[in-house]
Amino acid sequence: MRILVIGATGTIGSEVVKALADGNEIVAVTRSSAPVSVDLGDPAAIRAMYAKVGRVDAVVSAAGATAGIKPLAEQGDEDFAYSIANKLMGQVNLVRYGIDHVGDGGSFTLTSGVLGRQPMPGVAPISLVNLGLEGFAKAAALDLPRGLRVNVVSPPWVDETLRAYGMTGLSGLPAATVARAYAEAVATRASGTVIEPR
Amino acid sequence: MRILVIGATGTIGSEVVKALADGNEIVAVTRSSAPVSVDLGDPAAIRAMYAKVGRVDAVVSAAGATAGIKPLAEQGDEDFAYSIANKLMGQVNLVRYGIDHVGDGGSFTLTSGVLGRQPMPGVAPISLVNLGLEGFAKAAALDLPRGLRVNVVSPPWVDETLRAYGMTGLSGLPAATVARAYAEAVATRASGTVIEPR
Repeated sequence: MRILVIGATGTIGSEVVKALADGNEIVAVTRSSAPVSVDLGDPAAIRAMYAKVGRVDAVVSAAGATAGIKPLAEQGDEDFAYSIANKLMGQVNLVRYGIDHVGDGGSFTLTSGVLGRQPMPGVAPISLVNLGLEGFAKAAALDLPRGLRVNVVSPPWVDETLRAYGMTGLSGLPAATVARAYAEAVATRASGTVIEPR
Repeated sequence: MRILVIGATGTIGSEVVKALADGNEIVAVTRSSAPVSVDLGDPAAIRAMYAKVGRVDAVVSAAGATAGIKPLAEQGDEDFAYSIANKLMGQVNLVRYGIDHVGDGGSFTLTSGVLGRQPMPGVAPISLVNLGLEGFAKAAALDLPRGLRVNVVSPPWVDETLRAYGMTGLSGLPAATVARAYAEAVATRASGTVIEPR
């Protein structure tokens, strides 16, 4: 298969590329690196990316920026707008604009996250975005033509992230373990599902 | 209690007003009627409404416009933007901008809907908005000061709506039954919950 991977150099994305590498052609996309980049917060950039890449069999997104963790009173209008424009509508638009670029029976695999269903203080825009994306995918799955599929992986905390930020007291999974869920979503016939790696 | 009810003349909202009327002062707000109106899609209008209304003990929203039901391919950028600006961010902003206007221990009660968890074809923006709102409320509940609470009622189809649109084959509840869930959310100590009237 020819598989477009958005966020291909991130903590999870780089492991997704490894998990999918065997027997597939990976088109790796990042926010700013050549040869193909995309700013998910810019709808025109998503359309331009698809025009440049051409036909693929699957799209995997391990990207999606949001506002940081801080109390609700400090989350401004711009924090909600940024989170919605990037991680939420960026991934929604990967599906909407990608329909005509993905072959019959192909798939979209998007990323939400554990803070949607298990929030903690300071994450209101993130929880909004994660559950909103899951709501979109479950509904969109019912409308996609030509056997196209859409699923969402909801990663738990990833060990590499917990270590990088020195966050103790939270348990995580290795990114390589989380990446397997993306590979499964591409390989199976599932659609409209939310996959929680454990 | 002094209770602000947004969408007070709608199918559900008018029953919410009845359910809350006994022993409370209801400040009824609609999209366009005197004495107090608000366009939830306009952040400045929400701030102006709170400035005009003054202190309340509870805020109930039975409003929130979205795009209509139509295939994903016909849901344009503007349909997603309208749904997010109105039902989603309109209600999010009712909480964010209302914090300083609601007395200690007071509550916000918002409205999502059955299409979040039980989608059908043609409702992708609606499912996004409904689940996104639930994600926001569950997280925001952890951050609210002074014992303030936030809950979401997820109404099923309402009999009056099914009849008005001639929709057969779907079962619903009377709006008056759904309205009881809002009155309970105001009266109890619950916070961060999603209430599904049955």
